[in-house]
Amino acid sequence: MAEALIQIGVIGCADIARKVSRAITLAPNAALCAVASRSLEKASAFAAANAFPISAKVYGSYEALLEDPDVDAVYMPLPTSLHLRWAVLAAQKKKHLLLEKPVALNVAEFDRILEACESNGLQFMDNTMWVHNPRTSAMAHFLTDAHRFGNLKSVRTCFTFAADGEYLENDIRVKRDLDALGSLGDQGWYCVRAILLAANYELPKTVVASREPVLNKDGVILDSGASLYWEDGKVATFHCSFLANLTMDITAIGTRGTLHVHDFVIPYHEKEASFFAGTQTSFNDLVTGWAKQPSKHTVNTDLPQEALLVKEFARLVGEIKFKNSKPEKKWPTISRKTQLVLDAVNASIRRGFEPVQIQD
Amino acid sequence: MAEALIQIGVIGCADIARKVSRAITLAPNAALCAVASRSLEKASAFAAANAFPISAKVYGSYEALLEDPDVDAVYMPLPTSLHLRWAVLAAQKKKHLLLEKPVALNVAEFDRILEACESNGLQFMDNTMWVHNPRTSAMAHFLTDAHRFGNLKSVRTCFTFAADGEYLENDIRVKRDLDALGSLGDQGWYCVRAILLAANYELPKTVVASREPVLNKDGVILDSGASLYWEDGKVATFHCSFLANLTMDITAIGTRGTLHVHDFVIPYHEKEASFFAGTQTSFNDLVTGWAKQPSKHTVNTDLPQEALLVKEFARLVGEIKFKNSKPEKKWPTISRKTQLVLDAVNASIRRGFEPVQIQD
Repeated sequence: MAEALIQIGVIGCADIARKVSRAITLAPNAALCAVASRSLEKASAFAAANAFPISAKVYGSYEALLEDPDVDAVYMPLPTSLHLRWAVLAAQKKKHLLLEKPVALNVAEFDRILEACESNGLQFMDNTMWVHNPRTSAMAHFLTDAHRFGNLKSVRTCFTFAADGEYLENDIRVKRDLDALGSLGDQGWYCVRAILLAANYELPKTVVASREPVLNKDGVILDSGASLYWEDGKVATFHCSFLANLTMDITAIGTRGTLHVHDFVIPYHEKEASFFAGTQTSFNDLVTGWAKQPSKHTVNTDLPQEALLVKEFARLVGEIKFKNSKPEKKWPTISRKTQLVLDAVNASIRRGFEPVQIQD
Repeated sequence: MAEALIQIGVIGCADIARKVSRAITLAPNAALCAVASRSLEKASAFAAANAFPISAKVYGSYEALLEDPDVDAVYMPLPTSLHLRWAVLAAQKKKHLLLEKPVALNVAEFDRILEACESNGLQFMDNTMWVHNPRTSAMAHFLTDAHRFGNLKSVRTCFTFAADGEYLENDIRVKRDLDALGSLGDQGWYCVRAILLAANYELPKTVVASREPVLNKDGVILDSGASLYWEDGKVATFHCSFLANLTMDITAIGTRGTLHVHDFVIPYHEKEASFFAGTQTSFNDLVTGWAKQPSKHTVNTDLPQEALLVKEFARLVGEIKFKNSKPEKKWPTISRKTQLVLDAVNASIRRGFEPVQIQD
């Protein structure tokens, strides 16, 4: 039933848009209907290189795509500093919004984007793919299981990769006027999201940045981290960096269980993903080995996580478009919490690693 | 050649002494020759239950064992607050010393123990078993390999276990007058040692304790952590706790490689142990999976790590006893660095989580 497909336009031809265009094609309830770049040539080349259908429209300006009445929703992989302007305009043009992370330069900007979406009855979702992997649901079941995991005591996450010289010189993520949050906004976003998942989305009370962040000459964060504290004693730490080998770990420890993941943002393989989970792990009597150790859990998926994200987004848009439903608030609420924590880390860095309280 | 066996006496019948007595039996160059407790009955029962040879002597006081001229060396699993007194006396009685960790309540005490060992020409070693596992050598080779790992950027470690109510009430490790460092001295010792291993034993410059340690009513640490900073930008964090499920992780990230370990203190199995190592791990072109992921390395051992520790200790004692060698300084030097970091964490906790500089 082609009529039921949600028609998605892509605004901007960033590298990540290649992966998301493929995901829109793979999602059974969505279709690529348009692409816009600031140059028509670039948009045409992108459409040709990324298997857009012949019917897809190609625009030489973002405004033109937003004026297209056939476009239900837009995917927006623009640099973070452009989000406020274009996301608000997209909402004013009644387009549901799938927005790259970090969602904004700060939560005040994000609130203006959210307000525009809400007042126009539109679905908002950020493009954090890994949370849509069925592995993440399995992890969340484990983490919220009073018997298998108990209460969260601590969680450590990291996301690092070794950017090359070209990236560190020219990528938008190291440019103050484009992605001023740098590694914190890019990689830290995922770390914080994983911490929030482990904490069942309860915001920490206090955030203290690590003392030795690396900033480039423009003040953009290349390497940073923080400790997060909750009132009940839960502690989290994370580290993100453009300057260290590709690594993405979660270690979450509860009163009764432990979770280990080594590929949480991008699973090693597209169609299967694993984690290690242990409950009441224990030593043998002489403490020369473990009587009970964590075991490996593998979760398969027919669709890659980015296609599952698009499928969920298109489903929610479809509920609104075809069934008059209200937008789902879960996703923008989680986006906002993630941004709040990033803001606090950033503030702590700027204030000389002082503790920063989070006020929701 | 039985004459070449190093004769080891056990001072104190703590639970851990069962494992170490077995290790002394397993080590090809050492023999159990005596055990002392404050009660002769307890010492006799311990010797009987732990397969001491018939020739082994049983003493009802520590002093008596230390007077025995057949004893070359002592293993001392006494509560930390007793180390200074008994370790110094053992050295005065010319006994080489295998001492439980933490080696002392603080580095000033430890320096007095070391001085007693050095001035008597005695070998000192602490009982940190995992560093004697051949897996640890394989990990160290990886971590110091410029091509496979590069320069260390960050390392995170943890060691937690869920102590039961009985332990939290009565174990020596929660008693201010016995093991005042609590979880920090017990579990934190291992975390700090792993961090030092990853940093090739370079001491951090600054230590900042985590803000929400849990102390019992006597001020003994049940749960704590810290961030460690080096001048070149390396960062480490650790977390140790008696209040969370059994977990012991190392994640070390270099400019070119990553190491993951989940059972670093006590390997899951006695005779084989694994770690995950990746070099220049990378995504595939579309970032939908990894082109190069970490691989699992398994190292086998005929002797369990605690027997390898005893073997190394007895080898060094033998070099001194039979070949007039000097004591090996490597081991006490590492013990001292570990204690220095613990002292700094403890100081930071007591000073309201202020940064503490480490002065060697």
